[in-house]
Amino acid sequence: MNEDIFNKEIIDRVENVSPAVIRRLPRYYRYLRELIRAGQSRISSGELSKLMNVTASQIRQDLNCFGGFGQQGYGYNVNYLFAKISEILGVADNFSAIIIGAGNLGRALVGTRMFERRGVDVVAMFDISDEVIGKEFGGVKVYDMKDLKDFCSDKRIDIAVLALPKEVADDEVERLSAAGIKGIWNFTGKEIKTGRNMVFEDVYLGDSLMTLCYGVREKNIKDKKK
Amino acid sequence: MNEDIFNKEIIDRVENVSPAVIRRLPRYYRYLRELIRAGQSRISSGELSKLMNVTASQIRQDLNCFGGFGQQGYGYNVNYLFAKISEILGVADNFSAIIIGAGNLGRALVGTRMFERRGVDVVAMFDISDEVIGKEFGGVKVYDMKDLKDFCSDKRIDIAVLALPKEVADDEVERLSAAGIKGIWNFTGKEIKTGRNMVFEDVYLGDSLMTLCYGVREKNIKDKKK
Repeated sequence: MNEDIFNKEIIDRVENVSPAVIRRLPRYYRYLRELIRAGQSRISSGELSKLMNVTASQIRQDLNCFGGFGQQGYGYNVNYLFAKISEILGVADNFSAIIIGAGNLGRALVGTRMFERRGVDVVAMFDISDEVIGKEFGGVKVYDMKDLKDFCSDKRIDIAVLALPKEVADDEVERLSAAGIKGIWNFTGKEIKTGRNMVFEDVYLGDSLMTLCYGVREKNIKDKKK
Repeated sequence: MNEDIFNKEIIDRVENVSPAVIRRLPRYYRYLRELIRAGQSRISSGELSKLMNVTASQIRQDLNCFGGFGQQGYGYNVNYLFAKISEILGVADNFSAIIIGAGNLGRALVGTRMFERRGVDVVAMFDISDEVIGKEFGGVKVYDMKDLKDFCSDKRIDIAVLALPKEVADDEVERLSAAGIKGIWNFTGKEIKTGRNMVFEDVYLGDSLMTLCYGVREKNIKDKKK
């Protein structure tokens, strides 16, 4: 098969894929990575279904969105599927990122292997505090926020991670937009009004905590009824 | 209105509410909190709709699940709605929590006001490293992991936050289950097989990052087509 045609096909199809399917792809990515590590080279939708605890028809439906990687009677080629999902998710695009805020959260994020595992290169952190400017965390140097614009004009930076208090979130996004950043990973807990030519991915940890509290409360109610 | 009857009604209804609605409640909680801060005491579903950028019919549908707080022509009573959503989400239950792992992530979490804002009391952190045992972060003391079981039998602990490497996640959950913990807030990036009598809320930051990368990639493709 001609690779270029295949890629073009994927790109055309991707625009019609629902956000719900896109949201599920990283989970496939994680499971496929584990399978590769375990040395498994092919898997049927039935096996994958058991492993991931979703229906086989859901799996076929999700993966057929991208042109159908499966083959009747053979199953999915794990390496091929992993490579294609990686490509769709931009892992192969080698995005570069900066982290805004070198407090505990910024350090926690840079201290994990999360970025490199997904092909994202964290090239710098930025902060306003003299206490951290010039220091390194996880091998990444902290720069003065004042130098953000110059830094971004020298290098192509795709993603900014917002790990700072929500009070300054809007101003920061304005600056990052002016500096040519395309994607914002927002940990501030504040919903930032879009409209700018940027992609936002918000992480609301507080919402997640409340969902857990709801679950615990519901469990307590059920346990009492027993 | 008799408060007890009302509470019973809510509790009965809550069991039939879809997880999707429950997931949306924390967002209502955030917006209502902001309204209270701004001194606004009532709001129509139309206004709330504009503010939150969802349809008014979605809002009515979501909030009617809990017995309907709105009144025709008057709108929602902000304080009452906030109090009821808080109650449903267990904010008023004053859950207590421990954080397992006093590394950067554990410290980042304890350093925010996220827990106290949602009525959750973080009473201790646990770690295996002598370097941090005995220290305090955000006013919370770090204990030796060895003392976990005794600690939990002395105090009622509802929630454990897993902020440690995924390699040890399963063993830790086993221990926490034995110690009577009811809810796990899981940051390890590992899917933990349920089946235990516990509630899990998983945070997959890596999946969130990949969703962002997908968005940036899609944006790049669209921008190139222009």
